[in-house]
Amino acid sequence: MAQPPSAAFIDDLSRRFDPHTVSTDAADLEVYGRDGTRVYPSRPSAVVRPRREEEVSELLAACHERGVAVVPSGGRTGLAGGAVAMKGEVVLSLERMRGLADVDVLGQSLVVGAGATTQSVHEHAQRQGLTWPIDLASKGSCQIGGNVGTNAGGVRVIRYGHVRNWILGLRAVLADGTCLSVNRRLSKDNTGFDLKQLLIGSEGTLGVVTEATLKLTATAPPETVMLFAVAGLDAALELLQAARRGPFVITAFECFSDQCLEYVVRRQTVGAPFANMSEFYVLLAVEADTESLHGWLTTVLLCPWLVDATLALDATQARRLWSYREAISESLGVLGFPHKNDVALPVDRLGEFYRDLKQLFSSRYADWQICVFGHLADGNLHINTMKPESMSVEDFRARAMLADHEVFELVRRFGGSISAEHGIGLVKRPYLEYARAPSELELLRRIKATLDPHGILNPGKIFP
Amino acid sequence: MAQPPSAAFIDDLSRRFDPHTVSTDAADLEVYGRDGTRVYPSRPSAVVRPRREEEVSELLAACHERGVAVVPSGGRTGLAGGAVAMKGEVVLSLERMRGLADVDVLGQSLVVGAGATTQSVHEHAQRQGLTWPIDLASKGSCQIGGNVGTNAGGVRVIRYGHVRNWILGLRAVLADGTCLSVNRRLSKDNTGFDLKQLLIGSEGTLGVVTEATLKLTATAPPETVMLFAVAGLDAALELLQAARRGPFVITAFECFSDQCLEYVVRRQTVGAPFANMSEFYVLLAVEADTESLHGWLTTVLLCPWLVDATLALDATQARRLWSYREAISESLGVLGFPHKNDVALPVDRLGEFYRDLKQLFSSRYADWQICVFGHLADGNLHINTMKPESMSVEDFRARAMLADHEVFELVRRFGGSISAEHGIGLVKRPYLEYARAPSELELLRRIKATLDPHGILNPGKIFP
Repeated sequence: MAQPPSAAFIDDLSRRFDPHTVSTDAADLEVYGRDGTRVYPSRPSAVVRPRREEEVSELLAACHERGVAVVPSGGRTGLAGGAVAMKGEVVLSLERMRGLADVDVLGQSLVVGAGATTQSVHEHAQRQGLTWPIDLASKGSCQIGGNVGTNAGGVRVIRYGHVRNWILGLRAVLADGTCLSVNRRLSKDNTGFDLKQLLIGSEGTLGVVTEATLKLTATAPPETVMLFAVAGLDAALELLQAARRGPFVITAFECFSDQCLEYVVRRQTVGAPFANMSEFYVLLAVEADTESLHGWLTTVLLCPWLVDATLALDATQARRLWSYREAISESLGVLGFPHKNDVALPVDRLGEFYRDLKQLFSSRYADWQICVFGHLADGNLHINTMKPESMSVEDFRARAMLADHEVFELVRRFGGSISAEHGIGLVKRPYLEYARAPSELELLRRIKATLDPHGILNPGKIFP
Repeated sequence: MAQPPSAAFIDDLSRRFDPHTVSTDAADLEVYGRDGTRVYPSRPSAVVRPRREEEVSELLAACHERGVAVVPSGGRTGLAGGAVAMKGEVVLSLERMRGLADVDVLGQSLVVGAGATTQSVHEHAQRQGLTWPIDLASKGSCQIGGNVGTNAGGVRVIRYGHVRNWILGLRAVLADGTCLSVNRRLSKDNTGFDLKQLLIGSEGTLGVVTEATLKLTATAPPETVMLFAVAGLDAALELLQAARRGPFVITAFECFSDQCLEYVVRRQTVGAPFANMSEFYVLLAVEADTESLHGWLTTVLLCPWLVDATLALDATQARRLWSYREAISESLGVLGFPHKNDVALPVDRLGEFYRDLKQLFSSRYADWQICVFGHLADGNLHINTMKPESMSVEDFRARAMLADHEVFELVRRFGGSISAEHGIGLVKRPYLEYARAPSELELLRRIKATLDPHGILNPGKIFP
């Protein structure tokens, strides 16, 4: 197992690289060892911020030789602890490698440094009428390297799919310092199995991405946004079926429960969207022409499972409808103390799963409120278990981790995934057995050992 | 290195499995050891056609133990020799594992056996208004297992992408007989790196796919088909740019040179599409409403690089326009003797590459005609080098293999791929160095050794 570096090793790094590259400043150590989870202590030994791939290679070769643990680091917005450095690791931040090449308009591609923020990529491509259609709440700070490492999703997965589908090529440095350049600027390349796809979603455990060639597409046409109140999750699935048969392209199909809406309404100065509360809500965004959309709406409004509906007539109204969905995480966090899970189920098992989930909590954790929202068409539910006011944070955390075993047992029983988008990192590591059979885990370990024999890359992440 | 089985081993297999599972019949050996290449001798030792995954597992475990070479076999329509058995291997045909589950309409997924033909999948999904949007000329005989193993493309890649994007889950058996079930019926599952993606495109060298969960989508609306005559490949790229800005969804952007059209016109009873010949042709298919398409066409028809254009007014005319593109391979094969290559280039280098390619042949192989066609928007050109009439087949084959080194050197110089769609198999194996750097090859070999330590799966394929 890899270890923290010696003081002499850090000194040697500081001498090798230019003055701003290696930092052991206390403030830097505090910042660069944390991610979006905020529950783990931040205790790296040093932060290294190279500007060139050769420096990444030199650093990793030295760490590989000495068995020094390295945590690859992007915008640190992850929610699984994948970028946490709490055991004296060296943090390798890619943030200074954030160059953006000229947009390749004809080939619809863009070469960017791993440290470029997702938003900087959007703005750059937008000038040519193109986009990289991965849209994340954290886009202002998350980086392409992290997007690749976590195979990020977001609210447009239903329309465009995951990061995995939007990467034409990668440059990466392997644990021993070997530079790997795979599949550049080509949408077709069947020349042996795809190392790029193996690196995508590997959470920094197999290699460090330094550069990516992104696949771009035309900027999407304006969307029409609607909000529906429905009788429950089953009704939301009826609406999904109806929407799939609609005369439009679905760009978002987001759902949330009445509990989520209550928090949002309490937190914001925005009023409730409908006169009466319903059990479930769906935000539907589509690319449509007005006339055929109205025809479809007329039919849907007659369905017995539909309680109420509203359609945004302009951009301001559209933003307001989106705000009900987008304000949920923040509202839960400010007004309460949520324990978060991010699960996926086969879409046709969602209704049954949700019933069993509510049953589980009402019978075993009666005073815990559950707030559920997510990307329904992808089978992806974010389950927020709220701390009862009378319970201490420590007590709640400990109990919630035990409750997770029951939740994930349920997820496994329905053929689901314990981490739809967020990855495994540290947070889900104790539960990996609910996601992967022993034969799979064994294979993951063997591949890890093949690519990183000294185990220096993000040790303690993913693998129990 | 794995070896052919002993006679006793084959006898033992025949006793283990039911009477129709193992065959050493000469006619079977002749058929099951060949693929679409038709240039290699067919000499397997036996053909095994299991009906259940447990039988696949039992077979592979036995072969693994004895170091017996196995060739996984689908519809054998490949053009890279990936399914050829010419060294006494055991052919493992999945054709009897062709079950189709009920379509999961709500989740838009379908579980199928690896031996199901692509066409049977299309017909099955179509009954629910859904499709698996991988469209291949060989769909009547190619199988899902082969589609997965080769990460197949086809004429709809521009609209839908490769097979890689349309697989939700796989079941596979590893070399030692371990059954692996990864990512079933979930469009989101970030729980460690993706073994499924590693198997896709691995040409049967890492595991044998037994079942796949396919991602489905709504059947596409009717397409409008146009054929354009343009001044050359650069003009075709101008048209691509114009089409990308058009008020429609592009479903195909196929091109072919005047030489291809000459063969098609000579072969078929169909007349030439235009009064005069041009250097290049583009078949454009779009999902559009008539009015906005006409507006776009009016503008494009004024462009100086456009020579002529025709638009299909009904399904019969659309089929006729498609036939110019679809009849090329057959026409070249019947009227001449082509040597085929399937390369990809960055789209913005295609024009320059094509000039240099013509220059290469005119200076070094002056009497060899080159017929180029392909999926232009994907950067994918099928280069057919035609045997001069006066040259013997043997002589031509030997020389064409030497010429390939020059072609692939050019491909590498322009940052391209020596196999866009067809894979490496046996055909491209001697040239893998043009596609993969030594560090990549080393990594591919290490991963292969990790998953198949005795090298029994498709030995001699991909790796030089």
